[in-house]
Amino acid sequence: MFAVHLESGRVEIRRRPLPQLRPGFARIRMLAAGICSTDLELQRGYYGFRGTPGHEFVGEVTDCEDRNWIGQRVAGEINLACGDCQWCQRDLGRHCPHRTVLGIVKHPGAFREFLTLPVANLHRVPDSIPTEHAVFIEPVAAACEILDQVRIAKHQPVAVLGDGKLGLLIAQVLQAAGAKVHLFGRHSHKLAIAQRAGISTERIAKQLPQREFPIVVDATGSADGLRSAVAMCVPRGIVVMKSTVHGLVPIDTAPAIVNEITLIGSRCGRFEPAIRLLASGKVRVDDLISEEFPLNRAGEAFERAASKGVLKILLR
Amino acid sequence: MFAVHLESGRVEIRRRPLPQLRPGFARIRMLAAGICSTDLELQRGYYGFRGTPGHEFVGEVTDCEDRNWIGQRVAGEINLACGDCQWCQRDLGRHCPHRTVLGIVKHPGAFREFLTLPVANLHRVPDSIPTEHAVFIEPVAAACEILDQVRIAKHQPVAVLGDGKLGLLIAQVLQAAGAKVHLFGRHSHKLAIAQRAGISTERIAKQLPQREFPIVVDATGSADGLRSAVAMCVPRGIVVMKSTVHGLVPIDTAPAIVNEITLIGSRCGRFEPAIRLLASGKVRVDDLISEEFPLNRAGEAFERAASKGVLKILLR
Repeated sequence: MFAVHLESGRVEIRRRPLPQLRPGFARIRMLAAGICSTDLELQRGYYGFRGTPGHEFVGEVTDCEDRNWIGQRVAGEINLACGDCQWCQRDLGRHCPHRTVLGIVKHPGAFREFLTLPVANLHRVPDSIPTEHAVFIEPVAAACEILDQVRIAKHQPVAVLGDGKLGLLIAQVLQAAGAKVHLFGRHSHKLAIAQRAGISTERIAKQLPQREFPIVVDATGSADGLRSAVAMCVPRGIVVMKSTVHGLVPIDTAPAIVNEITLIGSRCGRFEPAIRLLASGKVRVDDLISEEFPLNRAGEAFERAASKGVLKILLR
Repeated sequence: MFAVHLESGRVEIRRRPLPQLRPGFARIRMLAAGICSTDLELQRGYYGFRGTPGHEFVGEVTDCEDRNWIGQRVAGEINLACGDCQWCQRDLGRHCPHRTVLGIVKHPGAFREFLTLPVANLHRVPDSIPTEHAVFIEPVAAACEILDQVRIAKHQPVAVLGDGKLGLLIAQVLQAAGAKVHLFGRHSHKLAIAQRAGISTERIAKQLPQREFPIVVDATGSADGLRSAVAMCVPRGIVVMKSTVHGLVPIDTAPAIVNEITLIGSRCGRFEPAIRLLASGKVRVDDLISEEFPLNRAGEAFERAASKGVLKILLR
């Protein structure tokens, strides 16, 4: 089979043997996968990565001990937990210290013809979600994680900072949860996507509003984002940190302390609410797909994904 | 009367007229005041400060419309709020955007013979608290603020990072609230103070424990403190930010996001619980007083307060 291989910034297509099926695992034929900002960071050497990336995918189970899975269209949670530690016991395998992570940490990713994942990680994709939408289950789950961490009341004003792929998903997820979302971004055509979903938007001009929002989500992916988010937040408000920025971020902690702001780190989420939201059509992802490439043109696809103004690039 | 005056790093004693008594205010004779790290930062030009600092004090009311206050020994909350805004309505004058702050923002501080404060800010000091202990009401209140922000269960392990004045008070306050406190510091003689209060301590050698504590309080006052605190914290744990560091702090936000840590900024607190703790003897401050100076030797006092290994310096 063919697999994408990242090494020293290069994107190569390599021939690989079919991955072995370990007990409790399923072998899955990749149907579609999405290139996420993390994949671009892995290409740049983040985590000292070398190998096959890809963690947003939908596939079809081809081999599995439990034959009920065979032929099912599935999405898969990306953290492969040990199942034994205190975190796993508490159903928080996403924080298992022994975990590997699909396409990120010590488990080959989904940018290849066949991948393997533990059956425990799989979620059947309902027929009402087309394959190219199901690729978004993982990032929508990451957006839904905010709802598990922060109580958001009906009509609660929330600012989302950043109109990239994740910002646009977060804005829709929070809007669907009843919040009054205000999305701030720099790109008219991206903000227009949010507007079509009924979200109030604002193009960032000179200055962002100060001390105005009780909840601010930083989805900028930039080192400045966190500082801006803290400044936009009212005293005793909440800033959700959704931007993993590679390297050190210089922040002025004084305003966060003086205004007693709570900063919450937020990463992967449960798949169930994401599947429900995509099935219900409350989160629309059609507009977020910029282009599709076949797996053997992954090099081009990565280049395109890194271009300005581009949203989600799919591999099929 | 005489007042301490800070300007361009110099500590001067200046002759000043008695401060005018505005309606709703009390005039207070300063009995004792403490030099805090913030005062040393003001000396270094933090907040572009010029004037009379001092916000930890105990005094005796000499003039006031409400004659019941006259002769009372009082401590005073340091935020002078407008009383009208939404924050004041919610009893959170400490976050009033129009506030001035005693000895810090546009209201002359307590390092002078007489000061003024709104009667609403005053708390009678019970006879059981000697004057030199009552100076600690303000910083103990700042330590108590953590209890208003974070639910701390009985026997809850909590790491306090930093064995300075604030770290030692926080350790005692959290211990009194039932937590199992572990204080990390660099100074044997300061850690010994905590040990005498029954707190478990650890001298920081090469490496701090990693991913071990569900709650970590950063009271180091150093730019590295926050990064260490995040590393010591278990996934989904809480880091309380108590160190106002002047300028930008370079932090690696990735571990906070990947481990979904909550960082909470924490500043001033309510005086009532602090007064109760000092009155009950559950927080002991005798060991924290390094030396006392008369007001007219404030220059020396500031120098001493900035010396290594010194804890609280009082002015009387």
